[in-house]
Order: sequence, then structure tokens, then C-alpha cells
Amino acid sequence: MEKLTIVKVGGKIVEDDDPLQRLLADFSTIAGNKILVHGGGASATKIAEKLGIKSQMVNGRRITDAETLKVVTMVYAGLVNKNIVAKLQACGLNALGLTGADMNVILSNKRPVTDIDYGFVGDVKYVNTGSLVDLLRQSVVPVLSPITHDGKGNLLNTNADTIAGETARALSYDYDVTLIYCFEKKGVLRDENDDSSIIPEINEELFKQYIEEGIIKGGMIPKLENAFRALKSGVGTVIITEASEICTGKGTYIIKN
Amino acid sequence: MEKLTIVKVGGKIVEDDDPLQRLLADFSTIAGNKILVHGGGASATKIAEKLGIKSQMVNGRRITDAETLKVVTMVYAGLVNKNIVAKLQACGLNALGLTGADMNVILSNKRPVTDIDYGFVGDVKYVNTGSLVDLLRQSVVPVLSPITHDGKGNLLNTNADTIAGETARALSYDYDVTLIYCFEKKGVLRDENDDSSIIPEINEELFKQYIEEGIIKGGMIPKLENAFRALKSGVGTVIITEASEICTGKGTYIIKN
Repeated sequence: MEKLTIVKVGGKIVEDDDPLQRLLADFSTIAGNKILVHGGGASATKIAEKLGIKSQMVNGRRITDAETLKVVTMVYAGLVNKNIVAKLQACGLNALGLTGADMNVILSNKRPVTDIDYGFVGDVKYVNTGSLVDLLRQSVVPVLSPITHDGKGNLLNTNADTIAGETARALSYDYDVTLIYCFEKKGVLRDENDDSSIIPEINEELFKQYIEEGIIKGGMIPKLENAFRALKSGVGTVIITEASEICTGKGTYIIKN
Repeated sequence: MEKLTIVKVGGKIVEDDDPLQRLLADFSTIAGNKILVHGGGASATKIAEKLGIKSQMVNGRRITDAETLKVVTMVYAGLVNKNIVAKLQACGLNALGLTGADMNVILSNKRPVTDIDYGFVGDVKYVNTGSLVDLLRQSVVPVLSPITHDGKGNLLNTNADTIAGETARALSYDYDVTLIYCFEKKGVLRDENDDSSIIPEINEELFKQYIEEGIIKGGMIPKLENAFRALKSGVGTVIITEASEICTGKGTYIIKN
């Protein structure tokens, strides 16, 4: 099978010109098929504030009311996505920015209301691998923003880690997929203040143990859950690493039991 | 040659849910290859105001400083474009929202500074018909937002009428193109307050005469200039009409001398 590398880049890096430029330059050197998935958290919060819209977060997830949906659509699918696309084009890649609505690449269900109403948040239902494979075969580099749609005309705010994981899972039938989650740390750390405390490998057993011990917590938990889900569905390699290390093979490897 | 219909829809309609929904439903009934080009003027101005950015206009064109470029990228390429794409998907079309940076479909030059510095405004240099033809052959419906790029990593604000005209021109080598500019009037009117005063046909001679007589003025002048330029380059039919008439064949026909 051909190789496919999916890189997910987090909120802080996409807002900082120089680190973003370095990441995109590195990304452009990855041989063969590749997809970039981006978040874009903090700038949406800042712009929402300026527009007088308050951002409500529950367990690290944004509550997306109608006005907030407009802001994240503007910031994620517009500002962040198109700047990345223009910069990748300048790096010689034939980048194409996509939401889930574009070519219907990712269809979601609006999250059901339980004790929390997340608002216009989508849980991925279906990744349209046909369209993505067609694009990859034309040497197009899809750049996925964390906005999906419900197929009924509504956009939905969707977690970028989940988009990366679900896209990797779906495409693992067609490609030998490497999924790289990159962020501002060197990998999963035993001690978040010590960059040298990187955990080289984590399997599900260790994951549970580290959660119990309080070593793994917060946003790292759903990120790793996405990683294990991807691994179990046939994704070959999952790595969590620093943005500057996406080409070096360094970082924490998520492995099967 | 196969037929291709390019519809350009203006600022006011894209901001008004019901008329937009009707336009998109009509657009989805057009048989065969089609492209939608949209503007998005007034909402960008409103959002810029809320963010404390003043919009400067000269001769109906926005002066685009760095902050304004961010706003138009958010509003045109994000909010407006992705809402249209999601709604067209719900109408059964395989819509794909694009800026000029995506798949490098439209490359622009930053407008040179003369007596006016328009800022980050792009004049269309090149329409990448190869990518657009590939998409149309896959039954994809491109939805073009009025943001292009310079190939060096910079986005540029570009007039939507010009994008529609230049795209029509470029694709007239591959398709029998009909270009429809739609807006809030029934067509080009002799008297802007009288909807029954529609001018059925205009050639370049009449165009010059109507300008002299003050019948054609303001934003209609560059729109018609784009129309004549398209016509001269091989575009088969150019119509200026109301949004509700894109399927009826009513409106003002722009014709050769």
C-alpha cells in the first residue's frame, strides 16, 4: 500500500507566523501523500470577545451557539485555513483547504443534548474517502479545518483531533497511514515541566495506568483516545510530538498492547 | 462543446437567508457544469466595524489593509463561502468552496500603487483551468470566493465580478460558457426606480452612449466592462439579471456589436 502521512497541528502554532512557517516548510518535505488537519482555538476566542460573544468551554470543548458557530467558521475555515493553503502553495504543494461540507468530505451528526448542550457541535459520522483518495491521486494536499456539516445545510464545529483520527481510520483501508499529532511539547511527558521526561511508547494498559497516576490528564486524554481508536482500526503508526519534530521521527509512539 | 454556466451572485443576496436559499435551489436545477462566484460586501463591513477596523472605499472598491484582509478572508472565504457550500450540498450538489489559493485556481498580482494604494488587492493574472476542468469532470461544483493569492504565500482581496468574468473567459476554450451576473434589479435599467425599464440588449456602442447619457453609472460600469471583455474572449452569452431569474432567461443580454 502507498504511504499517507496525516499531520494534525494544534491551536497555538497556527497563530504564530514563524513557527507556522517552519512547520509548513517541514510538512512540505514529507514525501508522498499527505493531509494537514488544523485547529485554531485561541484566535477564535479573541475575535469572539471583540465581537462581544462570550466563549463557553466545558471539559476543554467549546459550547457552540449560533453566533460562536459563525466565528469559528470565519476563523477556522477562513482565516486560518486559507493562510495555511496560501503558504503551502508557496512551498510548492498543491494545497486545497476543506471543511467537511466541501465535496462532502466529512459528514457529522449534531451532538445530542444530554446534561450538556454543546450547541452546533458535530460528531463525525462518515469520512468520504472516495473524494479524498481522488484528490490525493491528483497530488492535491487536503488541508482540513475543524468544521463539518450535517448534510442538511448546517455547518458544525468539530474537534480537530477527532477529525485527524477519523480521517486516518477511514483512509487506512486505502493507505499505510502515519498519524502525527503535533503540539508545543516534545511528546507525552511524565512531568509537563520537564522536556526530557518524554514517554517513548504508550500502549492502552500504560495509558490507563498513567491516567490513574495523574501523569496523563486534561486534553491529552481525548487526544490519546483518538490515537488508540485510530491504531485499532488499522492506522499503522501514531506519534505525538512537537511541531518542529514532524520529520525527525522523535516523540511518543502510541502502540498496540 | 459542453455547456458551462457561471453565476455570479452579489453582496446583498448572500447575506439574506431566504433569498439566498431560493437562489441556491434555482442554481441547483441548472443542468450540467456550473460554477458559483460570490461576493460578500456588507457583512465584511459590519464585522470590521465591530472589530474596530474602518472600511475605506474608493470608487466602490475596498482599500484592503492587513487587518481588513483578515476580515474579508474570514467573511468571504469562511462564513459566506462555507454556508453556501453546506446549503448546496443539501440541494444535492457536490459543491467545493475555493479561494484562488486552493489548488492554485486563481493567481493574482498585488495591484501596483499609483495615486491610490489599494493595499492587499489582487488583479487576476491567471485562471488555472486545468484544475477547474478536472473538478467539473468529476461533477464537482466550484464555489469561488473573491479571495485570490500571489503564489508567494499572500492572500489578496479580488473583485468578484472580475473573478466571474476572468473565469468565464479562461474556460471558454473548454466550454460553451454562459455567464450570469445576478443582483437585486431585473437587469440594466433605463431608470433605476422603474423595474419595467429594463434594457433588453446592450452592445458596446450602446454602453458608451448610455454612460454619456448617465443611464449607466457607478458599479454597473466595471460590471459591464467585465461582461464585454468576457464576450470578446469567446464567452457565448452574458446576462445581467435578478437573482430570482437565473433560470428564466430574463434580464439584459450583453451582445457583440
